[in-house]
Amino acid sequence: MRLELARILGARDQIDPVFLNTPQYECEPLGDVLGCRLILKVETLNPVRSFKGRGTETVLSRLEGDADAAVCASAGNLGQALAYSGRRRGIGVAVVASSAANPLKLERMKALGATVILVDGEIEAALETATRYAAETGAFLVEDSRDIGTCEGAATIGVELAESPVELDSVLISLGAGAMASGVGFALKSLRKTTEVICVQPENAPAMTLALRAGHPVEVGAPGTIADGVAGRYVIPEVLDDLSSIADDAVLVSEAAIVEAMRLLHVHAGLVVEPAAALGVASILEGQGRFDGRTVATILCGSNVTPEAFNRWTHVPISAPDTVGSR
Amino acid sequence: MRLELARILGARDQIDPVFLNTPQYECEPLGDVLGCRLILKVETLNPVRSFKGRGTETVLSRLEGDADAAVCASAGNLGQALAYSGRRRGIGVAVVASSAANPLKLERMKALGATVILVDGEIEAALETATRYAAETGAFLVEDSRDIGTCEGAATIGVELAESPVELDSVLISLGAGAMASGVGFALKSLRKTTEVICVQPENAPAMTLALRAGHPVEVGAPGTIADGVAGRYVIPEVLDDLSSIADDAVLVSEAAIVEAMRLLHVHAGLVVEPAAALGVASILEGQGRFDGRTVATILCGSNVTPEAFNRWTHVPISAPDTVGSR
Repeated sequence: MRLELARILGARDQIDPVFLNTPQYECEPLGDVLGCRLILKVETLNPVRSFKGRGTETVLSRLEGDADAAVCASAGNLGQALAYSGRRRGIGVAVVASSAANPLKLERMKALGATVILVDGEIEAALETATRYAAETGAFLVEDSRDIGTCEGAATIGVELAESPVELDSVLISLGAGAMASGVGFALKSLRKTTEVICVQPENAPAMTLALRAGHPVEVGAPGTIADGVAGRYVIPEVLDDLSSIADDAVLVSEAAIVEAMRLLHVHAGLVVEPAAALGVASILEGQGRFDGRTVATILCGSNVTPEAFNRWTHVPISAPDTVGSR
Repeated sequence: MRLELARILGARDQIDPVFLNTPQYECEPLGDVLGCRLILKVETLNPVRSFKGRGTETVLSRLEGDADAAVCASAGNLGQALAYSGRRRGIGVAVVASSAANPLKLERMKALGATVILVDGEIEAALETATRYAAETGAFLVEDSRDIGTCEGAATIGVELAESPVELDSVLISLGAGAMASGVGFALKSLRKTTEVICVQPENAPAMTLALRAGHPVEVGAPGTIADGVAGRYVIPEVLDDLSSIADDAVLVSEAAIVEAMRLLHVHAGLVVEPAAALGVASILEGQGRFDGRTVATILCGSNVTPEAFNRWTHVPISAPDTVGSR
């Protein structure tokens, strides 16, 4: 187990406060629809609209003086956060992303001053390029989930959840490479032993979930999910080790449930979230009564989605005259 | 001047923490569009989706033991907040609202356990009924802006803004009856003397702005704004007195600018806000360069708007096949 509570508590002092102490509150209208008591932990109201700043702040604050450049591979949110944290510290940032990445995320990385390098293929192709870039230029490679600072930064969310005055039966955590799930899960297990830690991954990007079930990485196909923030296919062994001893369960959700969860969060909580942030609510929808009457928290980990994509996916009802033709 | 800093600071200890220390961060994408450095103070991520809980918590915490019932007139947000604060304390709550009130707000008041009494007419008709109800039943009447606790609770927003590490040139505050504008403005003037306090009101509900300019209440017509949260026509003299010595300026904005501000906050910040929360951004849009290059904060004071109304107003682009008929 790579995680230690003291280091996680220490990370809280290293992170720009703009990322800390995010809203956590009961959303009764949505809980009523879902049949449980639902606590939302909202990570979208900050300069990069995702939780990733907690990790990049932790990593770069420890790096200060040792490197004047950093690089990462990113589907978008890590890249934005690294760009933000680098700019604050005068550390140059390069981000390698897939040419198919979410255009909003690419645009924001550039606006925050990052050099953006596009490569074809999945996140793992980007990681190869980033690794080579680091070797060639001397830039510090920030590898999501493998760099323990990304896990410790994310884990500060778990510390905050553990401070909730409400007893939490379960916490539903979106699972990609595992920084958030292992970090938050570890913090909860350290501070609130009775809270169940449940990881949620798209069934169309199930690598870590299947690895957790099998006890070792298994071959999966290319990810085919709209949840770009958690779409990978290779498992990092040390993260699998950490998460194996933390997670009480890992579940998979359908694309239809992700979209419906986004819609419900919009209608009943007034929130715009990206697909990866809706996995927890999606798992309640597909939980077949598992969470009925229970107190459940979920982390809304990002909102980097274009309004066009959001509306296309969720089919928001609308009657704007300029979009309905002759009606 | 009815406001005192010590009482405002004291209110922070009386308010449910779920309403306090709300996100405040620079939104660069929207700032870029508006030509200024824009700080958003987001009051929508709590159980009642508006800042009003700060005021009702302050009022009811001081009341505990002295009354077992409370009543208010409300366009919706105060009623929800009073219902929430009353339920926590075992204080029965009745809300008198206009029969034309926002249906989302009415539904939420009821869900929070309030008895909802509908009357025809504007907010002032509701206030008459609430006053009579209080006289007849002995319920404590919570009158927005006139009850100093509502101003002191709202003022805690100003204390938090004053703690920002960023120097604020101007703070743009939505103006209705004046609790938020006078409270936040007073806290800022006490703690950050150089920050300009600018109130923003719809030109279709300009009562307090015209009173500030004239130095006394003036006759205005019935409000005709979509910003239901700030739509009134009568000025409370003691609030006018307070605000006169606090506000550096009060400006009016068009309905078109309110709608465009809502749209921009959606597109560039990923936020859903109700019309009354968009007044500050609307005033930048209509500011004719006044805020160019300046550091400006605005308070997004509520998000109680139905998705249907939001989309109808902002004409969110959409291509959902089930809404475009034969196209």
